[in-house]
This record gives sequence, structure tokens and C-alpha cells, in this order.
Amino acid sequence: MPPTFRLGVLGGMGPLATVDFLHKLVLSTPAQRDQDHVPTVVWNVPQIADRQQAIAGAGPSPLPQLLDAVAGLNQAGATLIVMPCNTVHHWIEPLRRASPAPLLHIVDATLEVLEQRHAGEDGAGRAERCVGLVATKGALRARLYQDRLQQHGWRVLENTSEELEQLFTPGCYAIKRNALDEGSALLEKAAAALAARGARHLILACTEVPLALAHRQSPLLGLSVDPNQALAWSVLRHWEAVQGAQGTT
Amino acid sequence: MPPTFRLGVLGGMGPLATVDFLHKLVLSTPAQRDQDHVPTVVWNVPQIADRQQAIAGAGPSPLPQLLDAVAGLNQAGATLIVMPCNTVHHWIEPLRRASPAPLLHIVDATLEVLEQRHAGEDGAGRAERCVGLVATKGALRARLYQDRLQQHGWRVLENTSEELEQLFTPGCYAIKRNALDEGSALLEKAAAALAARGARHLILACTEVPLALAHRQSPLLGLSVDPNQALAWSVLRHWEAVQGAQGTT
Repeated sequence: MPPTFRLGVLGGMGPLATVDFLHKLVLSTPAQRDQDHVPTVVWNVPQIADRQQAIAGAGPSPLPQLLDAVAGLNQAGATLIVMPCNTVHHWIEPLRRASPAPLLHIVDATLEVLEQRHAGEDGAGRAERCVGLVATKGALRARLYQDRLQQHGWRVLENTSEELEQLFTPGCYAIKRNALDEGSALLEKAAAALAARGARHLILACTEVPLALAHRQSPLLGLSVDPNQALAWSVLRHWEAVQGAQGTT
Repeated sequence: MPPTFRLGVLGGMGPLATVDFLHKLVLSTPAQRDQDHVPTVVWNVPQIADRQQAIAGAGPSPLPQLLDAVAGLNQAGATLIVMPCNTVHHWIEPLRRASPAPLLHIVDATLEVLEQRHAGEDGAGRAERCVGLVATKGALRARLYQDRLQQHGWRVLENTSEELEQLFTPGCYAIKRNALDEGSALLEKAAAALAARGARHLILACTEVPLALAHRQSPLLGLSVDPNQALAWSVLRHWEAVQGAQGTT
């Protein structure tokens, strides 16, 4: 019997973010045994041209390598594809055109979580639709989240240039060199600045930030959406819909 | 240019053990940037017949599904295949015969770590070649580790039936239901019993045990070999050999 559902993960950007997504997917799955987990094929091949440089016009496009990976995942039987990396979504439309299997968008998955938190509310609640975007300069400049969120009626707050230079950027580098105490304190301050200016939710659109807030057991985690976790939940809704349609619960 | 090295991971048994292996592989890689990591394709498709039942003669063989996965990994360009699961190595020989890409054996990878610890030593050191095997009843019965280790001059100690029933098995179940304090104490006692009887090393051949010893920050970790970590190191030696041969350091 051909598979009716097989997840394809276009990963490698970076490899640790891919592992983080897979971990969240497995832990979020209501499984009683191995066989209840989502069948998944993962392309964790990181030999892909640098995405930040390509967006900045300073390097070759990663698109040929991304197209190869999408072809490989389709050949491996993928019926739905996700990319656990924010920046690479810059190229999602040409990949969608080339892929028989549909691609989920990480921003749509994040938006679903935000919308669920405000489901069924009235005008007063709508006024609270203000989200803080904790992200790298590059991600902010690419406007991956802002345009899509604003289209859905969300006000989006970003860190100022000073906050990026004094808190966010040195915080990320500290985490990357495993200086967890130092980096976590800086990143929590960057996130807290957005909450202080009125953000009712925080999108942790950079893989270091969930780590930092968890390290400090920060109360800001309660406001936060982790896009990799949102993507895992979105995959599970698709997987459960297929299970339901097959009558195998 | 076709890939000169691509790792294939035949996973899904269980999905969390696969993620654990991938995590160890990424963290063990001396990489400065995404592109320095091992190119990897992962078949994390857990819809495979139960291995314990098949070995016990109480269920269908998983071999047809394993052969499908091996074919898929070869089609995806794998040049070396690993299986981050102890029990499935019961079927490694028919898989090797069917696979153009070679399969590494998890017990050989574990043995390499043990041999490194005793490299260049004399007769007195040889007398200390005694290893404790912390594993499930099923894994002990399948003799996956014992025969291969004994062939290489290692004395292998196992937990007694009483230790398995009173310490190991309830400890594993406690960890599985997230009762970490209770489970860790039991599993550490099972491992300590082997050390008390003369084991100079411990093979943690069940995925719950490294978790348990880490939870207690147990000094027994210093004696231990984690087969998933050993497999990651073995992959990196192969990957580095290919890098060296290409002259790209």
C-alpha cells in the first residue's frame, strides 16, 4: 500500500534547528508506541549556499540546491513538506511550483497558534492583537513575518537598532559560544523590551531565543510562540486529518 | 557533482532514539558553519513490525519494511548507512546483502570506543577488559553484544534476573512515564551492581539509561559508553576520512 501520509523535512539550515524540530514533533505526537509516530523523511544536507548572503545580494542563490532537496523528498514519497528554518521561506514560492507535495509555511503555522489564542473574541480582544517579533536583523529586514501578520490584522513590534546591537546580537553570540547565563540575560531583556511596549505575544523567530528563555525559566515563555513548535503542531493536524479519514484512530 | 559522502539513517525504532542520535552527531561534529556538518538523509518511518515480537517468534518479520527503507536511502544517495537502534541489528546481514551502501554495526562502533580506552596496554590492562551490559531482557537474550565482545577478548557481565525484575525493568518504565527521580535511582542501582562485580566499563544499551545517569549526575557516566554516541563518532571518522581524501579540511 502506498503511504497516504509521509512528512518530508527540508532541513540542514542549520542541522541543529532540524533536530530541534524533529524533537518537538516526536514529543508533541500523542503516540502509545513507535508505530503511532508521524512517518518522516528528513533531508538534513546542509551543503546549501548561505541564505543571508544570497538575500543581501552578496552570494549565490541556494535555489538549485533547495530544488534538488525538494525533488529528493518527493521521490522518497513525501506528501507534505516543511522547512524548519525561517529565512529559507524567502524561496518558498519557486519550491511550491516545483513540488508535487505541498509545502507548509512556517509563518502560517505561527499565525495559527496566535489566532487560536484569540479565537472567538470581540472588538476589545482585537485591540490586543499586538505581537513582538524577536528575530535577527536579517530576518527583520526580509519582512518574512511582518507583512503576513499585518495582513491578518496584527500589529507587529520589533526591537530598536540599539536593542539589537546592545542586547539581541551579543546575546545570540553568547549563546552560540555556550555562555548561557550571559546570553540568556541579554536575550530576555530584548524580549522584555517588546512586552514593555505592549506586545501581548512574542514570536521567538531565532533558534537561540527559546533556549535562552528556558534557561532563565522566564515568565515571558508564557507569551511566546516558538515557530518550530508551531510547525510541529501544524504537521500533526494534517497527520490526524489523514488518520481520521482512514478511520484508524 | 555527485555526493562523495552522504549518511543514511535508518531510524524510527523508536523515533526519539533517532532524534537522540542526530543530536549527538550534530553536537560531535567539529563544524564552524552549517555547511561543515555531515550531509544526512533520515528515514524516520516507524511503521515497521515490532522487532521484539518478531525475535520472540510472536509476530511478523520487519525485514520487508527494513529493505524498503534501505532501498529508499540508497536511492536518496546514501553512501553509508547506520541504524540508531540496538535490536534491529538482528537483521543487519540481509540488509547488507541488499544495500549498495555499506552498513555500520552499532556494536562495532561501541567496541571501537572500548578498544580506544585500552589502546597500547600490556597484559595487566588486558585483565581489566571487563564490561557491564545494561540492557533489556530482550537485548540480553538476543546476545547482540555479548558474542561480539567476547570474540574480541572482553568479559561481559549482565544483571541477574532479580536485578532486572527489581531494578532495571521498573526503572525503565518509570523513566518512560517521566518519573525521573524514581526511575533514575533504580537504573543507577542496576548499573552500580555491575560495577561492584568488577565491570570497568558500562555499555548503556537501552536509551533510558543514559538519561537516568545524567539526571543523577552519576559518577558511573565516567565508565559508560553510549552506543548512539559511539555510532556518531564512528560516522565522523568515516566523514573525516572522505574530507581528508578530498583535501578539503
